[in-house]
Amino acid sequence: MTAPETLGDVTSLDPAVAARLKRDADGLVPAVVQDATTRDVLMVGWMDDEALHRTLTTGRGTYWSRSRQEYWVKGETSGHVQVVRGVRLDCDGDTLLVTVDQTGGACHTGDTTCFDADQLL
Amino acid sequence: MTAPETLGDVTSLDPAVAARLKRDADGLVPAVVQDATTRDVLMVGWMDDEALHRTLTTGRGTYWSRSRQEYWVKGETSGHVQVVRGVRLDCDGDTLLVTVDQTGGACHTGDTTCFDADQLL
Repeated sequence: MTAPETLGDVTSLDPAVAARLKRDADGLVPAVVQDATTRDVLMVGWMDDEALHRTLTTGRGTYWSRSRQEYWVKGETSGHVQVVRGVRLDCDGDTLLVTVDQTGGACHTGDTTCFDADQLL
Repeated sequence: MTAPETLGDVTSLDPAVAARLKRDADGLVPAVVQDATTRDVLMVGWMDDEALHRTLTTGRGTYWSRSRQEYWVKGETSGHVQVVRGVRLDCDGDTLLVTVDQTGGACHTGDTTCFDADQLL
């Protein structure tokens, strides 16, 4: 994927949104991903300004991989894509809620959600 | 509240759970809180081992405040308590999903959820 940064201001996150984001020390905010239909909490990804910008403008759930240090579009390799239905910022600007139409399982293990396997209570 | 640390091993997080937790540099994991009935995503709090231990053993949503650097029990001052119905750990051990019966609004603003006010998409 061509780095949108090379395309100039057209692809940068809306400054009015950027001004409301409160990022952690790595410039990231957690993004809770919820299935728009089943309302299952599917996963939590991480976004920087650019990942949020891409999510808002492409309509595909796009995250920053903290382990691989690169952007990833959910489903790009698995086919388990997320069509974004809505994005909301929380009251203190440090967490996103992304509602999606999820194709296939959201978890890389094949599970429907990343929270299916390990019940503590 | 008396610090449970003073009570010894009885109050420490189950080592089998602690071994599966992957904490950030501050020893914290995000906890997504979902209403067990409406399935709304209510808020995201942060937990260290002790907050998780207290949540699991008291049945009340208990978090670590990054701004105040102290534990807080949701609803302790507002009355908007969370009775914990379930706690799950995600596939890579770095995020919790807490399902609750929420009394009153979950957000300190009075809103039902912390994601009600700011819709980006």
